Amino acid sequence: MAEPFDAVDIIRIKRDRGVLGKAEIDWTIDAYTRGVLTDEQMAALAMAIFLNGMTPEEIRQWTAAMLDSGERMDFASLARPTADKHSTGGVGDKITLPLAPLVACFGVAVPQLSGRGLGHTGGTLDKLESIPGWRADLSNEEICRQLGEGSGAVICAAGSGLAPADKKLYALRDVTSTVDCIPLIASSIMSKKIAEGTGGLVLDVKVGSGAFMKDPSTARELAETMVDIGEAAGVRTVALLTDMSVPLGLTVGNALEVRESVEVLAGGGPADVVELTCTLAREMLATAGVADADVEAALADGRAMDVWKRMIREQGGDPEARLPAARHTHDVRAETDGILQDMDALKVGVASWRLGAGRARQDDPVQAGAGIEIFAKPGEAVYRGQPILRLHTDEPERFERALESLEGTLAVCEAPVAQGSGVVIDRIAKEK
Amino acid sequence: MAEPFDAVDIIRIKRDRGVLGKAEIDWTIDAYTRGVLTDEQMAALAMAIFLNGMTPEEIRQWTAAMLDSGERMDFASLARPTADKHSTGGVGDKITLPLAPLVACFGVAVPQLSGRGLGHTGGTLDKLESIPGWRADLSNEEICRQLGEGSGAVICAAGSGLAPADKKLYALRDVTSTVDCIPLIASSIMSKKIAEGTGGLVLDVKVGSGAFMKDPSTARELAETMVDIGEAAGVRTVALLTDMSVPLGLTVGNALEVRESVEVLAGGGPADVVELTCTLAREMLATAGVADADVEAALADGRAMDVWKRMIREQGGDPEARLPAARHTHDVRAETDGILQDMDALKVGVASWRLGAGRARQDDPVQAGAGIEIFAKPGEAVYRGQPILRLHTDEPERFERALESLEGTLAVCEAPVAQGSGVVIDRIAKEK
Repeated sequence: MAEPFDAVDIIRIKRDRGVLGKAEIDWTIDAYTRGVLTDEQMAALAMAIFLNGMTPEEIRQWTAAMLDSGERMDFASLARPTADKHSTGGVGDKITLPLAPLVACFGVAVPQLSGRGLGHTGGTLDKLESIPGWRADLSNEEICRQLGEGSGAVICAAGSGLAPADKKLYALRDVTSTVDCIPLIASSIMSKKIAEGTGGLVLDVKVGSGAFMKDPSTARELAETMVDIGEAAGVRTVALLTDMSVPLGLTVGNALEVRESVEVLAGGGPADVVELTCTLAREMLATAGVADADVEAALADGRAMDVWKRMIREQGGDPEARLPAARHTHDVRAETDGILQDMDALKVGVASWRLGAGRARQDDPVQAGAGIEIFAKPGEAVYRGQPILRLHTDEPERFERALESLEGTLAVCEAPVAQGSGVVIDRIAKEK
Repeated sequence: MAEPFDAVDIIRIKRDRGVLGKAEIDWTIDAYTRGVLTDEQMAALAMAIFLNGMTPEEIRQWTAAMLDSGERMDFASLARPTADKHSTGGVGDKITLPLAPLVACFGVAVPQLSGRGLGHTGGTLDKLESIPGWRADLSNEEICRQLGEGSGAVICAAGSGLAPADKKLYALRDVTSTVDCIPLIASSIMSKKIAEGTGGLVLDVKVGSGAFMKDPSTARELAETMVDIGEAAGVRTVALLTDMSVPLGLTVGNALEVRESVEVLAGGGPADVVELTCTLAREMLATAGVADADVEAALADGRAMDVWKRMIREQGGDPEARLPAARHTHDVRAETDGILQDMDALKVGVASWRLGAGRARQDDPVQAGAGIEIFAKPGEAVYRGQPILRLHTDEPERFERALESLEGTLAVCEAPVAQGSGVVIDRIAKEK
């Protein structure tokens, strides 16, 4: 059958700063999924999009076309509303773990489809897999049962049937230097999230050295683009810009972050993790129509912990089991008395990755126990010889390269440190 | 073995408007030829080059790297100097046919490696193949013998061993809308021409509706870029900008253009074809150190014709044989008395192509006899009913679409037509 468009013409339009219409975009994504528009043609088009951009309408259509390339989850049959969260990725970002059960406490189902980590930011599934017995792969029926009749919260792997065009395009962008492009990032994230069938969506857009987006203006543009896409697709969408210049909380790594998450669920945990968990929980609940929920109380009185334990058990895990610990540790100590000046999130993330907590390739294994404990954060007084970081790994030969990646951060001197205004920098939403 | 560079980094440099160094470019072309740098990576890089450009030094290195991807002809052992011509392609451009033997009259060998036509411009080999018996494929030994001991002129197919990276890249650019890009066009042409081993090179850069370059400033930029590349590679290179707003001469098509070429070699032929042939011959001879050659005399006294006949016979052709003629003709006539206002070269080229003189795909056959005879050119007086064009084809069902492509040109009215200043618009060379 004759194709209604020619890939060469489509590429030329975008190359020449033209605007692609709905029919052209629908055909492009469909033809790419079918293999009629080839990888080299999509690579040329992606570079043209990277360099010449897309209009908001093009981005909405591109997202809708990717959404249409695959199946779409449907939670309309649930008696509860649904809300989902997506983070653009950071160092020590374990928020999903306490957040999903906390939101579920208030009768809102949380279908949290997650990924594994690649590079210096960890993956939610990698973290949970450090819990003995826990499994990430659920069938659609299992997901619906857990959401409807069970704990109300699911954290699991996204099925391969969601937005297959995005999967193909993401792998292509990775090898053609077309990753850092807001229209393609936004449509990639949003096509998957909308395919997951949620009614409300809260985006945690990280900004700072440890984030994908290093500067606030780019992060804001990404956030605004995603909010626009989500609202256009009928999903109530709110974005928060949050700080990722220092690691979140006091742990980085898989089992270490589960431990800290459980501390939060037990009513404790580091202030920044608690603040961000509660803020995101309120936003998610608001997208689902639940206003003024006392989320702090649900952490303090054990309700969130109960949902967590039930959710872990539903997926085969033992929430009471002892978490794996690394066989070797090495402490990084303050060289002098004074104030800790900085703790670069990227450098800490890379160090944790080099200790074995992350992977370099898609199929690499990760160490459950590897990572970093943090004993002091910037602005705090330390004394000479005091441990600032404790590095964990099963393979002590990894310490050297991990320490190398920490060079140039963790300075201690007498100067005071300007304190930020908290973890949440800004909030982006369309007024209703 | 580990690769010294990563394609993703190379693409990112060009994407971010950086400059690639010699080692990076050498690796890029070599890795692409080996298949280590993939088609999709080269497509992204080509689009980044298209949109962000290349410096003159990058273009020189890119050309040198493509040259190094394959074999290189060497005519150093010939007792004669060599000179070559390249045309960027036009409608009715049969100049190579009289030019090669004319230059060879003066003791300069002409290794004219040519291509077949694709699209609305004809191919030199297609034209010569309308001569019964003539063959385009010669071995390197046959080429050297013909140049050294024979007629001194060769028009034949380029071997597949010359600049294989260019062959691969050209096919990729064709499907990824990255053709119309001066750095890539210039390096493609020049890598092949320098690989052909010529000592001097004259570039006929066409400008106007029937040319690849529609406007003079782009054509001039291409010409300057190619002259720079040629001189940097040690080839004496001169470029002429020549007019391609109307067809060259009075014939378009394969056998029809051979007939006109033979008229020129016999001392006759249309003035524009004679002018361009003689100008290019003088330029080619000058690059080879032969100054002030009386090329007009060599056409008038039959010397060029003698070399032509010998050259055709050397490649198996019969220069006295009757040329094929199309089975059907259709005349396009003036609808009124007046002055012929225009004759759009692109429209005439497309009409000839639709009559069967050209091909849509690489392996399509062409009709030897198909094409167009021109009886009047713009600025000439015509009378009502006078034939302006005669269309030739073996398949009369082709007339309709050929006539369609002529719509909007060939207007006749009383207004005088501004006459151009001749076929040669400008000359570009580095002063010595």
